[in-house]
Amino acid sequence: MNLKIKKSNLLAAINTVSKAVAVKTTRPILECILMEAKNGRIKLTANNLTLGIETFVEGTIIDEGVAAVSAKLFFDIIRNLNDSEVDIITNSDYRIEIKCEKTEFEVPYWDGTDFPEFPIVEKEKSITISQLGFRDIVRQTIFSVSDNENSRMMTGEHFEVKNNELTVTSLDGSRISMRKVSLKGDNSDINAIVPGKTLKDVVRIVNGGADDDVVIYFTDSHMLFEFENTRVVSRLIEGDYFKITHMLSMDHSLMVKANRQELMGCISRASLLIQESDRKPIIVKIKNNDIMYIRIDTNKGSFNDYIDIEKEGNEIVIGFNPSFIMDALNVIDDDKVNIYMKDSKSPCIIRNEESTFIYIVLPININVDAY
Amino acid sequence: MNLKIKKSNLLAAINTVSKAVAVKTTRPILECILMEAKNGRIKLTANNLTLGIETFVEGTIIDEGVAAVSAKLFFDIIRNLNDSEVDIITNSDYRIEIKCEKTEFEVPYWDGTDFPEFPIVEKEKSITISQLGFRDIVRQTIFSVSDNENSRMMTGEHFEVKNNELTVTSLDGSRISMRKVSLKGDNSDINAIVPGKTLKDVVRIVNGGADDDVVIYFTDSHMLFEFENTRVVSRLIEGDYFKITHMLSMDHSLMVKANRQELMGCISRASLLIQESDRKPIIVKIKNNDIMYIRIDTNKGSFNDYIDIEKEGNEIVIGFNPSFIMDALNVIDDDKVNIYMKDSKSPCIIRNEESTFIYIVLPININVDAY
Repeated sequence: MNLKIKKSNLLAAINTVSKAVAVKTTRPILECILMEAKNGRIKLTANNLTLGIETFVEGTIIDEGVAAVSAKLFFDIIRNLNDSEVDIITNSDYRIEIKCEKTEFEVPYWDGTDFPEFPIVEKEKSITISQLGFRDIVRQTIFSVSDNENSRMMTGEHFEVKNNELTVTSLDGSRISMRKVSLKGDNSDINAIVPGKTLKDVVRIVNGGADDDVVIYFTDSHMLFEFENTRVVSRLIEGDYFKITHMLSMDHSLMVKANRQELMGCISRASLLIQESDRKPIIVKIKNNDIMYIRIDTNKGSFNDYIDIEKEGNEIVIGFNPSFIMDALNVIDDDKVNIYMKDSKSPCIIRNEESTFIYIVLPININVDAY
Repeated sequence: MNLKIKKSNLLAAINTVSKAVAVKTTRPILECILMEAKNGRIKLTANNLTLGIETFVEGTIIDEGVAAVSAKLFFDIIRNLNDSEVDIITNSDYRIEIKCEKTEFEVPYWDGTDFPEFPIVEKEKSITISQLGFRDIVRQTIFSVSDNENSRMMTGEHFEVKNNELTVTSLDGSRISMRKVSLKGDNSDINAIVPGKTLKDVVRIVNGGADDDVVIYFTDSHMLFEFENTRVVSRLIEGDYFKITHMLSMDHSLMVKANRQELMGCISRASLLIQESDRKPIIVKIKNNDIMYIRIDTNKGSFNDYIDIEKEGNEIVIGFNPSFIMDALNVIDDDKVNIYMKDSKSPCIIRNEESTFIYIVLPININVDAY
């Protein structure tokens, strides 16, 4: 193999595939990046068996060939070269030369015969979404994915497409996040559970804007992202996702409109008094005026604060895990948020009027009469 | 105690003294900040018994008093308040109220009777230096302070003043760093070993520029920094510092002038092939032309590079720990550096023509004939 590639192009390609390099593994080949030069194209691939990424990179092929190199070392070397043309040449004793201007590295490579095959995904069902839109949806739902591997389905996000509308849902037993978005053009109906880890990795390489699309193909067991010169394949999580329709149609006795930043300031201050060992709830109290009182009492001290709100409905005293409320407020883009509550034992719902986002948080049981 | 202080002033004062708050200690009072309001002034103090910092903060005293509060909690609370006036009020049951606009915190405080006394330092001997100059000197020498507590003197920097010239030296057994600077006005002759930890902490709060001075007082056992509203006291390290004059007057057989950035690029690339477990040297080779060849061979691979230099003198092959050379090159502000060498077993000296900075690095023993 003998290639000439611009440093910046090569570095971008390594960056892209490196999200699929295995970190701790008993199969060292999974810590490598596979370079293939054939049929006039240069391709880089990484595959940790859950996620596989391949990307084509521009360059000149002098001799075709294949080589697998340590991903970490390859990345470190290329990153530290001058911004110029890089020569990549394999020689007969399994050493690969990496040359750039006056600099020459020579490191081992493997022939890649034991590198895993890139999975073939049937292109029957697909959706198309802008890259910016895809990143937004993931950002606004990924925080309530569970990291408890004992409940596999909770570690994923539900992707459901009906009538060209995508609904993405995640839940972890204490809360639910849901985002809806209209898709452009004609899209297949989809019902799939995507690993949260896949989504976290893919949003880091789907860098395009509102005018750049990503096409996502689904089979029963896999999904394939296609964008620019890159293809990402991930396994799906098997199973039927949780039914949560009844949670969404719940009635409420109180609707509060609050300034998002003010509410976040209040809750983050209250959180200062929380100790890891003793997770006390914050107490939200709304009486007959347009004020939301927030307090907390812990071993570290006590905190009282309030914010002005608009409200419709009954009075309430209710307790929350403050970080669950913060996680939702953090990803909402609106200045004002609508909060729907029923009583101290019923879930609280934060959503906009069109319900394009819905966050449901279970309350913490408190002695209401004490407040 | 009942005080009114602007949030921004209070936060800056907490930030300043917090460098002297004890981190892990069996005496919880050392994790506190002491607030004292008396004689019309408000003072914050922290003292971990090695370092003590006190600073005065502007504010209104309604009632005088004293209170010690957990430094971490106090910092977290003040940092999260709105940018407005803060009320600080102690009440009878050892609770301190911290109020700002609609927000109220109440946390425990201690009366501070067991808070350590701030050491009294005689103001006999002193030097005056600009705050920027002080930070520069420390930045350019602190990296070769040893962190091995078994050799106490090596964990400090030698401050020596003669004829209004300050010489600061640090060494760790493999290298020496030395900076010289002329002081303004009349300064005492000084001979003291300052703990490296003190210098690292103090440069983070001596934020002034070239026109802002810091006065440093020395006794046999302590030093005192005075600047703006702040005083910092540190213990000194006892002992007579190492004699290194003979190292400085060494002759050389070769002088090299190199571009600092180019040389750093070369060495950092070479360092990529070094493994923690197997610290191989970089090999510097200079023959009869104006080129410095740099190579390294390790289990990870091999590296060859070269840079153009100007040179006067003999040929040489010499081995170095690359990070020692990098540390020195990193803090030099000049574009070109002068490197003086004698043979493969003698120290290499990097210094400017006026010798206001001198870095001495011992070579690593190599088989010269192999290169």
